[in-house]
Amino acid sequence: MSYHKPEAKTVQDLKDLAQKLRIHSINATQASKSGHPTSCASIAEIMSVLFFQQLRLNLKHPRDPSSDRFILSKGHAAPILYAAWAEAGLFPIEDLNNLRKIDSDLEGHPTPRLNFIDVGTGSLGQGVAVGAGMAYVGKNFDKADYRTYVVVGDGESAEGSIWESLHFAGHYKLDNLCVIFDVNRLGQSEATSLQHKLDVYRDRLEAFGFNAVVVDGHDVEELSKAFHCAAITKNKPTAIIAKTFKGRDFPNIEDLDNWHGKPLGDKAAEVVKHLQGLIVNKNVKLAPKPVPKTGAAPDVDISNIKLSSPPAYKLGDSIATRLAYGTALAKIGQNNLRVVALDGDTKNSTFSDKLKKLDPERYIECFIAEQNLVGVAVGAACRRRTVAFVSTFATFFTRAFDQIRMGAISQTNVNFVGSHCGCSIGEDGPSQMGLEDIAMFRTIPGSTIFYPSDAVSTERAVELAANTKGVCFIRTSRPNTCVIYDNEEPFTIGRGKVVRQKSSDEVLLIGAGITLYECLAAADQLEKNCITVRVIDPFTVKPLDAELIIEHGKQCGGRVVVVEDHYQQGGLGEAVLSALAGERNFVVKHLYVPTVPRSGPPSVLIDMFGISARHVVNAVNEILKD
Amino acid sequence: MSYHKPEAKTVQDLKDLAQKLRIHSINATQASKSGHPTSCASIAEIMSVLFFQQLRLNLKHPRDPSSDRFILSKGHAAPILYAAWAEAGLFPIEDLNNLRKIDSDLEGHPTPRLNFIDVGTGSLGQGVAVGAGMAYVGKNFDKADYRTYVVVGDGESAEGSIWESLHFAGHYKLDNLCVIFDVNRLGQSEATSLQHKLDVYRDRLEAFGFNAVVVDGHDVEELSKAFHCAAITKNKPTAIIAKTFKGRDFPNIEDLDNWHGKPLGDKAAEVVKHLQGLIVNKNVKLAPKPVPKTGAAPDVDISNIKLSSPPAYKLGDSIATRLAYGTALAKIGQNNLRVVALDGDTKNSTFSDKLKKLDPERYIECFIAEQNLVGVAVGAACRRRTVAFVSTFATFFTRAFDQIRMGAISQTNVNFVGSHCGCSIGEDGPSQMGLEDIAMFRTIPGSTIFYPSDAVSTERAVELAANTKGVCFIRTSRPNTCVIYDNEEPFTIGRGKVVRQKSSDEVLLIGAGITLYECLAAADQLEKNCITVRVIDPFTVKPLDAELIIEHGKQCGGRVVVVEDHYQQGGLGEAVLSALAGERNFVVKHLYVPTVPRSGPPSVLIDMFGISARHVVNAVNEILKD
Repeated sequence: MSYHKPEAKTVQDLKDLAQKLRIHSINATQASKSGHPTSCASIAEIMSVLFFQQLRLNLKHPRDPSSDRFILSKGHAAPILYAAWAEAGLFPIEDLNNLRKIDSDLEGHPTPRLNFIDVGTGSLGQGVAVGAGMAYVGKNFDKADYRTYVVVGDGESAEGSIWESLHFAGHYKLDNLCVIFDVNRLGQSEATSLQHKLDVYRDRLEAFGFNAVVVDGHDVEELSKAFHCAAITKNKPTAIIAKTFKGRDFPNIEDLDNWHGKPLGDKAAEVVKHLQGLIVNKNVKLAPKPVPKTGAAPDVDISNIKLSSPPAYKLGDSIATRLAYGTALAKIGQNNLRVVALDGDTKNSTFSDKLKKLDPERYIECFIAEQNLVGVAVGAACRRRTVAFVSTFATFFTRAFDQIRMGAISQTNVNFVGSHCGCSIGEDGPSQMGLEDIAMFRTIPGSTIFYPSDAVSTERAVELAANTKGVCFIRTSRPNTCVIYDNEEPFTIGRGKVVRQKSSDEVLLIGAGITLYECLAAADQLEKNCITVRVIDPFTVKPLDAELIIEHGKQCGGRVVVVEDHYQQGGLGEAVLSALAGERNFVVKHLYVPTVPRSGPPSVLIDMFGISARHVVNAVNEILKD
Repeated sequence: MSYHKPEAKTVQDLKDLAQKLRIHSINATQASKSGHPTSCASIAEIMSVLFFQQLRLNLKHPRDPSSDRFILSKGHAAPILYAAWAEAGLFPIEDLNNLRKIDSDLEGHPTPRLNFIDVGTGSLGQGVAVGAGMAYVGKNFDKADYRTYVVVGDGESAEGSIWESLHFAGHYKLDNLCVIFDVNRLGQSEATSLQHKLDVYRDRLEAFGFNAVVVDGHDVEELSKAFHCAAITKNKPTAIIAKTFKGRDFPNIEDLDNWHGKPLGDKAAEVVKHLQGLIVNKNVKLAPKPVPKTGAAPDVDISNIKLSSPPAYKLGDSIATRLAYGTALAKIGQNNLRVVALDGDTKNSTFSDKLKKLDPERYIECFIAEQNLVGVAVGAACRRRTVAFVSTFATFFTRAFDQIRMGAISQTNVNFVGSHCGCSIGEDGPSQMGLEDIAMFRTIPGSTIFYPSDAVSTERAVELAANTKGVCFIRTSRPNTCVIYDNEEPFTIGRGKVVRQKSSDEVLLIGAGITLYECLAAADQLEKNCITVRVIDPFTVKPLDAELIIEHGKQCGGRVVVVEDHYQQGGLGEAVLSALAGERNFVVKHLYVPTVPRSGPPSVLIDMFGISARHVVNAVNEILKD
């Protein structure tokens, strides 16, 4: 595949199109009275060359699994991305003037409400991870010809997440990935730290395993050649380091401070006139390349995933839910070849290594870099190519909260599995304890949160998560817990289980994971004193089975005790309180970990931090006074 | 300062001490039956040379502001850190056998419960940011001679946060910082991605602005020389890339897989015997260098910080709380020279640039790298050297949740200020909206959360935060809001304000920020229909004024409506529900943003997403049916 210089006509057309994209960006942000026209201007030639010379697109089906992927990591340049698709013919140019309007999906930053967007961007530094996930799938699972392109701003390249992803792409030799750095020198509030030091970018990128090409980002011929170089470079991803200028070709604005995120206002007309003067062929029209017939992505079906065999435990067996997770992961992996697992070097603790043992190719080691771990999973799950399960210690997902948050905006179906929740992990101490993970995942719009207490329910949680839209989170525990459900027990999202009840019950106890067993132990102790209590295992914290809790809570005189190995805020307890908000005549005692725990044996810690059976007994005795 | 080779006796003593540290690490983890002896073994010579040749320490006052700083970023190697301090004479060697015991502060990972620890580590990849913050303060504020050393594991160097911090240190030429990379090749579950590719580490570190020195990490002479090189290198931080072996000198364990995080068990005795055989002088004893009298850090007083002048607004003025934040920041900056501000290139949106305008030297631009931003602030606030205010968009703090979480374990007093909360930011769309920030900060143990609604209360929030221990978070809003408090109004943490009341009130409304004004507007509308309602401004969400809410809620028939520009989970609404958990006869309606918002005008969005005055009126009418 030798390089053919584009013809002079093509070069001029691409230049003209770049100016048209600039004009559209100005006009759209004028109409919306907000937005980032200068951030669009710096990538006009990059977008022109990408969309009208490089990308192989399917305008009838923009999410064609075989088409090239494009991610605008610097999401604030959305207007020029919309303009490129409009010029390509996907929708009318006039629609661009609906930018940021309430009834238009042409939002301030791109989201997959638009059929040509795979993931939401706008929180910076996340595009490369997603692109790397797509490229990993393209190279290793789809084994298809599609390529992935990511445009990154120089400001956002200060985000460490970018460097995690660059390392990942270099390590896995993702030669189907091309990252374009738009080095326009200016950030939001001042110049970037590296300004136009292109050699520093090059040295860094080469050291991170990239084929790094420095170009004049406003020269379509240089860009054209660089993309060709990227396409023929094997065993290495390519970075195109484009020297650009913010507000390029906007007279008295280009390369100047204080023009970030502002429409041009009363300067717009003059600038548009200037840009029109630069266009040679006012009627220029180019079509994107079609998707070739060869090298297509295979058909994939990720629906109706099942455990390859039902849970096989004995009542009373003692098995950690984290271990049952691994078992279930391997079982769904046997059932569907598109089930993949990703982990950040904790696979022998989370037990995601069970999928690796089943099929090493479907395990993606992401090393200790949780932001990229999550981003790669989001990318891998795009266009329904895989069912991705991501695991690490529950608390280390806090490292990727922003990526998970953006995952919801991206409408991702990634499944997260967090082990080592709560102070019950013991001696490793507070830095390793997940005590805020339920709160975090509950805030994710549309999320489903499983908190299984035994091995049987854990296996069913994994099976359900694999088939559930939106972000799923499964919270697993480190200590062994007793199997309390029959292997045939059915589980449903949003349906809890009454695990102990008598008609004489005076208090409803709600616990999950290790605290369910503390509730049961407390119930035994209380019964010796002729107090009977009901116990509910919620199974899912979100959605919570409000109906069940209200019904049984009423039967217990409106007295509820919730016990959880989590901080007070945002966890199971507050979920129960939200469920009861509309009910009068309830009183809730909430037992939770009240402060930063410490190192010690699990049983000592759960007692020291107020969530052991003894404390449940005390709470029941207290609440009975109400 | 030319290099003098250490004498042969010193070299042998340092070697012997390294072996003693290994033996202590084995014995302590044997006693605790858990821990990471092999991760200690790889840094034994590094620790020996640091503690007994390099670091200038004050054993009587380990947090002496003038002493050198040491951070063990790979916190799981805690046993050898404890051993080094014990060998240095800070506490008895025998105490090491209390490792990980419930009544010992020698926890599994270091925390500042120990007087020789500045920050908690154990969540990986955070030490360099903290060290960079300390070094920044040492160089620019203290202008003192102390140096900062950070030991980083090779596994954790995959964390992007590390690269953010390395870039920061290089950019600000922190030549008083020395980062030691312990390249022991092995991670937890498999080899690291770079294994022993020392040249790759060197190329990356040089490209990130470091003086990079590759050494045999088990050779005390090479280490000694490298530390000298670090000390004399000006205008650049130094990275010492130490080739080491995990489990060094542990026969049949060294450099082998499957020995992460495990005591040696029945192999311990044999290994200890082998190590003892390597020691030449069994009675070796070395003292750390004392802190020199010259180049000391100045005395600093950060207590009793005041606004330099009281708020100066007129009732009815329309001012965004984010702007009032900037005004107040500059005022406390005028009052105390140790007030510093840090931001991630959003200073002209958060208005932290007002401190920069007052005194450019006290503003630390951290560019778009929020994890490092937070870590640097934590470091800057250590040993009470500064009062640090960190600002960015509220939602971008999700990027640093893990750093904030670890900040609580580190007992930090950093103040966080998050602007652009809620869907009321408007056209920029969901990626920029803080809708989970209250939930996040509420989970932080000991945190204080201010959610001021007008400019007067914002200024007081800033003043209070500056004097409050623990993590403080101030949530500011983008739109202008009306000044409703007199300039003299006093504000107290945990005390809300009743902003509207009549004896006939039938419902209690609680709102904050923009929703307080929606509540007031709703109250006006309702009054036209002869329904009067009470309105409370909570001022702080944590602690929440439960007493006030219960008292006034009861007066309103137990009917409460909470309205917030935040998701349902973990925010103001659930804080109110927690406050009312122990009360029967309350019913709460909670209005919140129910799903991912979109781009549009603020007023349209707050109505579309259910938190406008109209919805409050409806909720009141509904709840009156209860």
